[in-house]
Amino acid sequence: LFMTNLYVDSEWIQSWSSRAAREAEAVAAISCSGHGRAYLDGVLVDGQNQPVCECNTCFSGPDCSLFLSDCDVNADGGDPLFLEPFWMQNAANSALVVAGWHRMSYTYEDSNLISQELETHIRKIHAIVGNAVTHKRFIVLGAGSTQLLNAAVHALSLDNSSSPAKVVAAIPFYPLYEKQTVYFQSTDFKFDGDVSLWKNSSDTSINLVEFVTAPNNPDGQMNKAVLKGPNTKPIYDHAYYWPHYTPITAPADGNLMIFTTSKLTGHAGSRFGWAVIKDESVYQKMYDYMGVNTMGVSRDTQLRALKLLKVVLESGGREIFEFGHNTMRNRWEKLSNTISLSNRFTLQQIPPQYCTFFHKVRASSPAFAWVKCEREEDINCYEVLKAAKIIGRAGRIFQGQDQYVRLSLLRSQDDFDLLIHRLSKLVSEENGAKTM
Amino acid sequence: LFMTNLYVDSEWIQSWSSRAAREAEAVAAISCSGHGRAYLDGVLVDGQNQPVCECNTCFSGPDCSLFLSDCDVNADGGDPLFLEPFWMQNAANSALVVAGWHRMSYTYEDSNLISQELETHIRKIHAIVGNAVTHKRFIVLGAGSTQLLNAAVHALSLDNSSSPAKVVAAIPFYPLYEKQTVYFQSTDFKFDGDVSLWKNSSDTSINLVEFVTAPNNPDGQMNKAVLKGPNTKPIYDHAYYWPHYTPITAPADGNLMIFTTSKLTGHAGSRFGWAVIKDESVYQKMYDYMGVNTMGVSRDTQLRALKLLKVVLESGGREIFEFGHNTMRNRWEKLSNTISLSNRFTLQQIPPQYCTFFHKVRASSPAFAWVKCEREEDINCYEVLKAAKIIGRAGRIFQGQDQYVRLSLLRSQDDFDLLIHRLSKLVSEENGAKTM
Repeated sequence: LFMTNLYVDSEWIQSWSSRAAREAEAVAAISCSGHGRAYLDGVLVDGQNQPVCECNTCFSGPDCSLFLSDCDVNADGGDPLFLEPFWMQNAANSALVVAGWHRMSYTYEDSNLISQELETHIRKIHAIVGNAVTHKRFIVLGAGSTQLLNAAVHALSLDNSSSPAKVVAAIPFYPLYEKQTVYFQSTDFKFDGDVSLWKNSSDTSINLVEFVTAPNNPDGQMNKAVLKGPNTKPIYDHAYYWPHYTPITAPADGNLMIFTTSKLTGHAGSRFGWAVIKDESVYQKMYDYMGVNTMGVSRDTQLRALKLLKVVLESGGREIFEFGHNTMRNRWEKLSNTISLSNRFTLQQIPPQYCTFFHKVRASSPAFAWVKCEREEDINCYEVLKAAKIIGRAGRIFQGQDQYVRLSLLRSQDDFDLLIHRLSKLVSEENGAKTM
Repeated sequence: LFMTNLYVDSEWIQSWSSRAAREAEAVAAISCSGHGRAYLDGVLVDGQNQPVCECNTCFSGPDCSLFLSDCDVNADGGDPLFLEPFWMQNAANSALVVAGWHRMSYTYEDSNLISQELETHIRKIHAIVGNAVTHKRFIVLGAGSTQLLNAAVHALSLDNSSSPAKVVAAIPFYPLYEKQTVYFQSTDFKFDGDVSLWKNSSDTSINLVEFVTAPNNPDGQMNKAVLKGPNTKPIYDHAYYWPHYTPITAPADGNLMIFTTSKLTGHAGSRFGWAVIKDESVYQKMYDYMGVNTMGVSRDTQLRALKLLKVVLESGGREIFEFGHNTMRNRWEKLSNTISLSNRFTLQQIPPQYCTFFHKVRASSPAFAWVKCEREEDINCYEVLKAAKIIGRAGRIFQGQDQYVRLSLLRSQDDFDLLIHRLSKLVSEENGAKTM
């Protein structure tokens, strides 16, 4: 039975999309044992027209069924694969068909670099989640928060000041803030590290740009701006201010706030984020930056982001946030229970709060564990865990101390399960551990 | 007859992609009178669930059927819509289905920011077109050539030199070179304008980065590097070095060459380009730049670019380049014929050459006309055309003279037809025009 044109209902004749649909469904049907997946743009299996299985860490073989028991568990990167099962469950409403002639122009109809529909949907998401004020605010899109962070530094530093703006953050902080500010060596700004050195400064001649990360990466704390005063300018990085990770206590209302799909829908690979901006001149500067840097965000990415946000909105956000929160809470509880048996390690504490989205008091379920090695002889906590085949991210990478290490909790279920397995073993081997 | 799961052939049960296919095909079926199109992410018609028609310049109304006879024709921007009909004709093989869970990770399997399959296809395209050497070369992807241009300046400027590198180009040049270099005020590089001022310089202490645009934007000439010597570093912008626009005379073999889908497939909106790089350390610096700036190119964009390049390759490139070349040659001939009747305007001359792709001597069919106003009193050629309701781009924007204006020839057929109509009228009104 071969057909290429099918009457499916009275209005629709499937024609030009069927070949693409067949390709995508065939790839999706490739079995990788639940420990990997095949992608449409994967490298092909030798001599065949079919992409290979790409396996989760510590799994191998043509169908990812081989468990590498001796392998290091990856608890390092922030790949948000905990949300992947949600999208597999929502395959039908999250699929997207892109026509070959879709949006070839440099601009949208209104000579703009931003899809108006997408902007509308971003505002709707914030409205239903209640995590940010967007009324009378401007929105700029970027390639993930990554591009927006430097655009914000750039925009807030541009003024007639004779000396470059100092860019600071509270320790421990996300290392990209420093890396990026140093990398794009500008005459307008300079990274200056620890915000606490400026806390009591009375020098009003210096422009200060402060990264305020809430919840914070790595430790999940709801940071507030340290600096106050007329020439201090905060950049609120709210990548993690979603019900997956934290109680939503009130709509954030900073002058410049940055969000990203990486930690909302889990699509880090899409490189899509946005800034919500109060001041029109700052908005204009960031919009210009996006034009000069990349001529805006790929129209393909904007189309996909729109589709994903539509799925989030379909249930008023309930489905994805319940899925995300349940997963992250479950993981946090497992981790907490494991660490609670230890005298050697401790975890960060974050007080529960009333969540306006879930309408109840709830604990945090942070994206990362900020583990401390309590023994005096464990001077390098990263190395302690590495010896137990757990790869975290060392505290010093966040300008923190070597006693700390960050463990990622938002990776695939395989990674998380193995992490707990290795941690349990390590704790059970403690001299005088609480279980013994 | 309602069905959601259909046996189309023995291997495939269409299921999760059918809703998306229905949506996309319904939008594609919206009639916009051939003078506009509706997109999946278009703004919705009031009170309906259907996107509006987005009309070509000078067309209006709900279905774009209303011709605005008094409207200015847009011959300004470089929107490559002349290739849109090619993609409509190739609807079935260029359609793409993106699964909701496609490539959520930050990286591809090999911890890379670049799709290996895509890189392979880029090398294949250069091999069949014969326009660039890629053997033993490195490839970096960017958000269009835009992002790559600054990454290249950045990479070539980074060294231990005490003074910033001078960035130069031959007049007339693409204005983004200056805009971008000035905008990202760095301690490492500084825009210095006209390359000819450095031609005979014997100062070997200064690092010079030269943009070499071949074919050149605006005038279509096959520019060569002006500067020679150990501390001069060319960036070859080969955006237009494709059979659509120019004879392919030999594979380009510069140390650093930049290409973009904007002018190859016509997908400017996808923001996708690549650099071909000889030196590993320069490659590493540009790769790092992409990481720090945007964490690489959106995986959605890479997936789409792969699909488009596959279509280009299906016929060994013959189909798209014949379509593109025929269209552009036809336009150039019409324009040349029109201008040849004039005593007031002249066009650039580009000698024909043997094209190794088409295996014959052929003329250029440039993307832009570089029109000169020959009358002494026509001191501002842009204004002369503007008075005739033709909006070009003024010569001075390219640091050229006011006697020149650039007219875009790669826009939609509607734009081109109206351009010829208006030009013919202008020429026919000349005192002593050749027709009179």
